[in-house]
Amino acid sequence: MGRVTSRHKVVRIDLDGDVSRAIDTVAGEEPLEIRVNGETFTVTMRTPGSDIDLAHGLLRAEGIIARRDDVVSAQFCSDLDTLNVLNLTLSSGREGRAAVTSTRNLASLGGCGLCGTTAVEATEAVVDERPPEVLWEASQIADSVGELRSRQTVFDKTGGVHGAGLVPVGGSELAIVREDIGRHNAVDKVLGAALITEVETAGGLLVVSSRASFELVQKAAVSGVSVLACVSAPSSLAIEAADRLGVTLVAFARGRRMNVYTHSHRIPH
Amino acid sequence: MGRVTSRHKVVRIDLDGDVSRAIDTVAGEEPLEIRVNGETFTVTMRTPGSDIDLAHGLLRAEGIIARRDDVVSAQFCSDLDTLNVLNLTLSSGREGRAAVTSTRNLASLGGCGLCGTTAVEATEAVVDERPPEVLWEASQIADSVGELRSRQTVFDKTGGVHGAGLVPVGGSELAIVREDIGRHNAVDKVLGAALITEVETAGGLLVVSSRASFELVQKAAVSGVSVLACVSAPSSLAIEAADRLGVTLVAFARGRRMNVYTHSHRIPH
Repeated sequence: MGRVTSRHKVVRIDLDGDVSRAIDTVAGEEPLEIRVNGETFTVTMRTPGSDIDLAHGLLRAEGIIARRDDVVSAQFCSDLDTLNVLNLTLSSGREGRAAVTSTRNLASLGGCGLCGTTAVEATEAVVDERPPEVLWEASQIADSVGELRSRQTVFDKTGGVHGAGLVPVGGSELAIVREDIGRHNAVDKVLGAALITEVETAGGLLVVSSRASFELVQKAAVSGVSVLACVSAPSSLAIEAADRLGVTLVAFARGRRMNVYTHSHRIPH
Repeated sequence: MGRVTSRHKVVRIDLDGDVSRAIDTVAGEEPLEIRVNGETFTVTMRTPGSDIDLAHGLLRAEGIIARRDDVVSAQFCSDLDTLNVLNLTLSSGREGRAAVTSTRNLASLGGCGLCGTTAVEATEAVVDERPPEVLWEASQIADSVGELRSRQTVFDKTGGVHGAGLVPVGGSELAIVREDIGRHNAVDKVLGAALITEVETAGGLLVVSSRASFELVQKAAVSGVSVLACVSAPSSLAIEAADRLGVTLVAFARGRRMNVYTHSHRIPH
């Protein structure tokens, strides 16, 4: 693609030293419009690359698709000079779900006039099953966070992207690693790539370089991930969602230490 | 509110030491539904507190309001037990703008069928004027970043929120500081508070504890901010937008060092 990173002029100021001019490599950020059967579903700001993974992951998290065969084709609009409009055609059994799920596309909600049924409630994803009761050693989690950092090649160049990676059940290293300026996108890319390449996510360990938000917990739960481990802090709603959905939530996973906020029985200690 | 932070049980694992149980303070995250004249405008995940600032800042960034008098009233729905639904009533001259601007509320766009006019283009905000040609010393920028860090009280407790602050033209310290789990929200809260309290943003210095994204640059530009200084990395589109909109973009502002990516003439060096 060539747009994962780009180079820009920069003036470096050091108040204790010199002013210098240089060329800096920065992370790409461009809008991606995802269409489902020709209708705009959403637009997300993302780092170009792995866009088809991203679209699959996003639609999976929203409950619109559940397996690889639910998508008949994924195609960039060819009459544009950028690769920023991607159309997915769903199999006939899935066509109706995009319309139904647009109620979670919150900005599109009209006012209901009644406070009792608010758009706020629509933020909760529907998750049918709790993740499998797979055990993950704390040392494996620490190793996977370290492995993720060592494989974040775009971060090494730019300092400006998040990373996510998946260790499937029974694995000892990251089967999939993706990077993006948005932490949600990085996770969507990983879980979408797993869907496409048929890597099992249920029971797996998902590691993310960022803070742990509500949305990340929901994305993990929809894919049946048993342990979500984040490098930085959790939010209150992330903890509440993980507790309710049965996900083991690890945060501040740094070096040899980590905090386990929910369902700690999956991590022998 | 009492929900800016909350306390949760945690199991702390140190692979080189002990396992301990503790109570951890984490940043609040709850959905806020913002209604304009009774119609749902958007739902954002935010840290509760300064919600009226947030709503003003968001509507200002979207071009729906431009001054304090454009909002007649801001009221939480009183028949809910949470304060997560906020309705703003606009003055008669502004009523139509919410509907027009919903074209920027991207998820609500229907497919156009023509790649030539995509939802992607709607991501660009309309900014009429370039920010004023105010000069800001590099030492002032470094001091303001340091001051922001020292005033991030929620971050001190949780490690899980971003901060933003504004130094108006002629000022030497931050007139407004706000925190939120979302960096966009932190900036909306600052610029919304400035609108409500009639602190001048045009020509000002906006400092943010996060990376510099496209959306942050646009929010700064709409409010006439001359210098946007971020602690972490910029994205490619942030640099391009700052260049086009006339905003001086500083990133990696850490300690006594900073990188200036655009319009460096406003920072004497």
